[in-house]
Amino acid sequence: MKNKGRVTLPTEQNFLKETKELIDKWGADAVRDSDGTELDKGIIELDTKVYKTYFVARGHNDFIKKHLEEMQQLYLMSKFNTATDKTLEVALMDGYYEEQIEPDYRHDPKKWWEVIDRTTGDVVATENWSVNKEDHTVNINNVEPFHEYTVSFLVYMKWDPTHMYNHITNDWGDAPHDIPFDVRQPNSQAYMKDYLKKWVKENPETDVVRFTTFFYHFTLVFNDLAKEKFVDWFGYGSTVSVSVLEAFEKEKGYALRPEDIVDQGYYNTAFRVPSKAYLDYIDFVQAFVAEQAKELVDIVHDAGKEAMMFLGDNWIGTEPYGKYFEKIGLDSVVGSVGDGATLRMIADIPHIKYSEGRFLPYFFPDTFNENNNPVTEANERWLSSRRAMMRNPLDRIGYGGYLHLAYEFPEFVEYIGKVTDEFRDIISHVDGSKPLTKLKVAFVSSWGKLRSWQYFMVSHALWYKQIYTYQGILESLSGLPVDVDFISFDEIKENGVPEDVSVIINAGDAGTAFSGGDHWTDPKLVGNIRKWVHNGGGFIGVGEPSAVSHQGRYFQLADVLGVDKELGFSLSSNKYFTETTTGHFLNRNRTDFDYGESMKNIYATSKDTTILDYSDGEVHLSSSTYGKGRSVYMAGLPFSVENTRLLYKAMMYAANKEDEYTTWHVTNANCEVNVYPEKGWYAIINNSMEQQKTDVYNGEGKALSYTLEPSELRWERI
Amino acid sequence: MKNKGRVTLPTEQNFLKETKELIDKWGADAVRDSDGTELDKGIIELDTKVYKTYFVARGHNDFIKKHLEEMQQLYLMSKFNTATDKTLEVALMDGYYEEQIEPDYRHDPKKWWEVIDRTTGDVVATENWSVNKEDHTVNINNVEPFHEYTVSFLVYMKWDPTHMYNHITNDWGDAPHDIPFDVRQPNSQAYMKDYLKKWVKENPETDVVRFTTFFYHFTLVFNDLAKEKFVDWFGYGSTVSVSVLEAFEKEKGYALRPEDIVDQGYYNTAFRVPSKAYLDYIDFVQAFVAEQAKELVDIVHDAGKEAMMFLGDNWIGTEPYGKYFEKIGLDSVVGSVGDGATLRMIADIPHIKYSEGRFLPYFFPDTFNENNNPVTEANERWLSSRRAMMRNPLDRIGYGGYLHLAYEFPEFVEYIGKVTDEFRDIISHVDGSKPLTKLKVAFVSSWGKLRSWQYFMVSHALWYKQIYTYQGILESLSGLPVDVDFISFDEIKENGVPEDVSVIINAGDAGTAFSGGDHWTDPKLVGNIRKWVHNGGGFIGVGEPSAVSHQGRYFQLADVLGVDKELGFSLSSNKYFTETTTGHFLNRNRTDFDYGESMKNIYATSKDTTILDYSDGEVHLSSSTYGKGRSVYMAGLPFSVENTRLLYKAMMYAANKEDEYTTWHVTNANCEVNVYPEKGWYAIINNSMEQQKTDVYNGEGKALSYTLEPSELRWERI
Repeated sequence: MKNKGRVTLPTEQNFLKETKELIDKWGADAVRDSDGTELDKGIIELDTKVYKTYFVARGHNDFIKKHLEEMQQLYLMSKFNTATDKTLEVALMDGYYEEQIEPDYRHDPKKWWEVIDRTTGDVVATENWSVNKEDHTVNINNVEPFHEYTVSFLVYMKWDPTHMYNHITNDWGDAPHDIPFDVRQPNSQAYMKDYLKKWVKENPETDVVRFTTFFYHFTLVFNDLAKEKFVDWFGYGSTVSVSVLEAFEKEKGYALRPEDIVDQGYYNTAFRVPSKAYLDYIDFVQAFVAEQAKELVDIVHDAGKEAMMFLGDNWIGTEPYGKYFEKIGLDSVVGSVGDGATLRMIADIPHIKYSEGRFLPYFFPDTFNENNNPVTEANERWLSSRRAMMRNPLDRIGYGGYLHLAYEFPEFVEYIGKVTDEFRDIISHVDGSKPLTKLKVAFVSSWGKLRSWQYFMVSHALWYKQIYTYQGILESLSGLPVDVDFISFDEIKENGVPEDVSVIINAGDAGTAFSGGDHWTDPKLVGNIRKWVHNGGGFIGVGEPSAVSHQGRYFQLADVLGVDKELGFSLSSNKYFTETTTGHFLNRNRTDFDYGESMKNIYATSKDTTILDYSDGEVHLSSSTYGKGRSVYMAGLPFSVENTRLLYKAMMYAANKEDEYTTWHVTNANCEVNVYPEKGWYAIINNSMEQQKTDVYNGEGKALSYTLEPSELRWERI
Repeated sequence: MKNKGRVTLPTEQNFLKETKELIDKWGADAVRDSDGTELDKGIIELDTKVYKTYFVARGHNDFIKKHLEEMQQLYLMSKFNTATDKTLEVALMDGYYEEQIEPDYRHDPKKWWEVIDRTTGDVVATENWSVNKEDHTVNINNVEPFHEYTVSFLVYMKWDPTHMYNHITNDWGDAPHDIPFDVRQPNSQAYMKDYLKKWVKENPETDVVRFTTFFYHFTLVFNDLAKEKFVDWFGYGSTVSVSVLEAFEKEKGYALRPEDIVDQGYYNTAFRVPSKAYLDYIDFVQAFVAEQAKELVDIVHDAGKEAMMFLGDNWIGTEPYGKYFEKIGLDSVVGSVGDGATLRMIADIPHIKYSEGRFLPYFFPDTFNENNNPVTEANERWLSSRRAMMRNPLDRIGYGGYLHLAYEFPEFVEYIGKVTDEFRDIISHVDGSKPLTKLKVAFVSSWGKLRSWQYFMVSHALWYKQIYTYQGILESLSGLPVDVDFISFDEIKENGVPEDVSVIINAGDAGTAFSGGDHWTDPKLVGNIRKWVHNGGGFIGVGEPSAVSHQGRYFQLADVLGVDKELGFSLSSNKYFTETTTGHFLNRNRTDFDYGESMKNIYATSKDTTILDYSDGEVHLSSSTYGKGRSVYMAGLPFSVENTRLLYKAMMYAANKEDEYTTWHVTNANCEVNVYPEKGWYAIINNSMEQQKTDVYNGEGKALSYTLEPSELRWERI
């Protein structure tokens, strides 16, 4: 008999028969509409839950057009302008998209804007500049020739960025632009609640209100060629307004400067070590968002429906790992899953009844066309996310896009049938129990728990040359038999490393929020970590860990790591330690490591450093001991099955647990084993699309040989 | 008839006949002794000048043993020591060589030493530490557990570093160690003059006193395994003493801290942006050295002899490009020449009657043995330095080592005969006239003129991975038809870029004295350069020019360069400009560039940047315009004939002079042409050891074809 449940399908009008067929084949128990599609009446009468997409702060142009003063705002910075004379004209809109934004002249620029001499960092006195509203320019007097100047100015955002993106991408022509509004403003505030109350009544067939999302879109600004100019999936740019700034000052007792938001043009991206002002600001917004979202969720609940949130688009302020999220009272969060780290980002969300992952590929023509077999991508995505699922399964999975496109690919339909069965099979075996865990690792950065599984991300799931080397750590961790925590520098400063943590990881390029920048000049941070490692903790550094030039060190934990980076200042000190140790636990079975972008000029600081990979005058992999503790340094860790193995071994080694490595262990790096002691199962997975032979060592270290078919998942009794 | 003159030979005892033969074959007119060799009596009677090596502040153990309190001193820093408890013992000599140094307990450690908490940077109060002289330890109380501590302490240097190096390298057994002394001390001060007065009388056959060198050795400290621990050819470490510190305070009105010298353990290497205190200190030492050296030179002159200085060993404080050098009144400077840059370093020295280059290879068994043909190295060295000679010839050349070794290689003897003839031939054609120059380039760094031709050097002529990418610029410049100046950031801040400069170069890794570090936050520096480029100047940046994170830029001259470096903070800003321009003046004939260590994450800041080489998501070569001026960015420039050509073209392009590129121009990059208008000659050189065909364009841009034999130098009438 066919398994059923835990699967959500997109659907569309005039596709009832085929939808029923797919519901059956995939065991779906819920259907949903998409942006721009409507549910077929017939679907509503089936025995499936119905999700309906709901926009809070966009898609209500009739309302907002009467209250344009409540449009969402944004602080922007002009281009850098070099003065060649004693006066300078700055064109505000140079490089910006006039369809998206317009300068805010409603509020006094002299109060809310800032002109900065970027050569000195000084703010230009307001009497030295004036605004020309006709041509959107600022004229600055008494400038210093050959200094650069910028203007930080408030704008209105006239077009919701996601709507704009879809509109431009799909060439929707003269379709009206969704105008986003700020629910902090009085009319919007009242409207959003009244409308939802009305809406829940008018949509009795909807079981689940899928908020897409709440109030504030992540920062997405287009340029004058209508192309993406600035994107930060974590950005609070579009939460700004005069009223939030005024409310902030009232509550926190100090006013923010435009520069606190504009941040030299970096706009406080997640890669910037956050300032106190910025942390205060996002906390303030989060509290407001949670409070307001709760009111909407309450309306949904009062109507007897469930409230689900999409993790994306207007998600700013809702951070599911933040301290206010629980208050919202959501039933569920749904998000896009492309790999293990994004799966865990959804699956690990606390304080909800169930999580749902929208799997890839999307049913769009770019994948579903006659020249492509969508099974390939589906299989790859499933394999990379399944290993994370074995650690913490999602409660539901689903798909998106045009169902009729998927229907045209029978092989795909059949494959997804297997995937959905396998998914339900995992859930039924795991059954809420905790898989065996070898140790607990804490990833330390400026962001701590708030950005769990989101480190090194710029735009959701996009590849960047500067991040893949570090994102590999998260991707590897997502399926490894370890508990993963995320912890901030501030927490370690205050409370030290938590008792239950065996290993901490610090990774990233110097100066970023992930490596830590100036945090590392804080004696409490380095002192607490040193003490903890000295007492037996494990420290793993990747790239430029603990890096800031201070008091003769670049890596502030060079004493713990046994390596530092040569910046040129210490070239005069001979670097004698270059000999590689072979046959070490970490390089015994493998020597062809891949460090991605890698890191130059790393050298061992003493003869006690165990160098495990050295070439071209540089250390790439090493370990060191520090009191009772150990450290491992890696020049980079892009994702691969081999690097996953390396990270796993590095954690076991750093935790002084290499003896436990060979219990519940598979010899073939393409395979993994997970154990569910409460349920008496273990599962061996083949993460590759080829057949694999592997030995599996059980809890007593006894080996059994297995041959696994491509992508196979094998359940065995312990 | 055989040319004669301008050549110096080393010689040795019991080798008279052969020496005469070589004097004849190489046209030598001077002979010299070496460290450890004595001149043969017979030599002295020949018609050649006699140079004699003279040590001022070493090699006088009979004297110094009676005044050990006048031994040379040094500030050293202990290792970093991590406290794990409330007290900490620091072993001062850990990692140091007891034969070389001993802690100075004569002067009160509480006054002259410093204990520093390197985790906070705070100085530990003197009441919290004590010295144990028996086992050379410092005991610190009330320490913060898991902070790192260092002790900066004064030591005596008991062994001259060059003598020590030779002793250890050549295994001289129990030969006594040359004890260096500080001529600032009263007995040493009197002794050095009295002894020289006596010596000049006792050495009537000596025509030239070759000071090897004056008073203070560059910093060279050995470790506990008697291997080099720290070497800085520019280091003032061994100029330190209590008396210089007291004299400094008296003259400058403030006292130096040990940390001003120890500098976090970096010891103010030439790669550190110098502090004001350090600049004051070296200026103070230079003034003293010049004054004292002058007194010795006067004694030599009064005895009717010439005074020559060796550029190396105890040369600290004499800097030939410094402001006090002229006062010394030397007749000559001699230094080791291995390539073009080291040749120019000697040849360009002002205020002397003649310069002399000691050419390589040294007549030592490592090169002169049955398995090696020394002609190969001699030929390579001659070719690389000859191109610099064409710009500014040395007045004399010479050789070093054991003459009998050279004599055993007849092919070598013959080859050097050709070289010495060619050298004299160059001098006779150039005859003191100035070669044609296309433009003047100024290399800007923290050091300016003081370290002319010495940028990026750690230890004289040694290769380091971190420097070759930048040293190539100097090597290329040494033979190019441009005037080369060296200028400091401070000079540009005060006076702007000099009128006669067409192009300035800023190169190096971020934060180094060469790139400039915090200098670039000074509005006067960036303002003056921007203004100058805007008015038509040319700016060439290599590696990380003008790099310091400040006000939204990493390259502070990103506006001039059209490129900046991504540190991770601006990943959210899309980087659209990636298209390469082909057929540009700089990449028209070549696209396979070599950037050495290169530079990651460089991106074009606007569409106006002309990208000339782009791959792997990075700009490697680009140009930009800025007002009437131009800039060129290069990711690195190791030396090669092709890169020399690239630099030359980049300078011509940056100076808006690409039209003048094809006058007096050779088409083959292995060849170069130099023109001597006053004398009516031009010279074409083949810098390779293969035959080369090339077109030569004359002053009217008319081409003539040439075929040059391997290494050929051809003189032609204009």
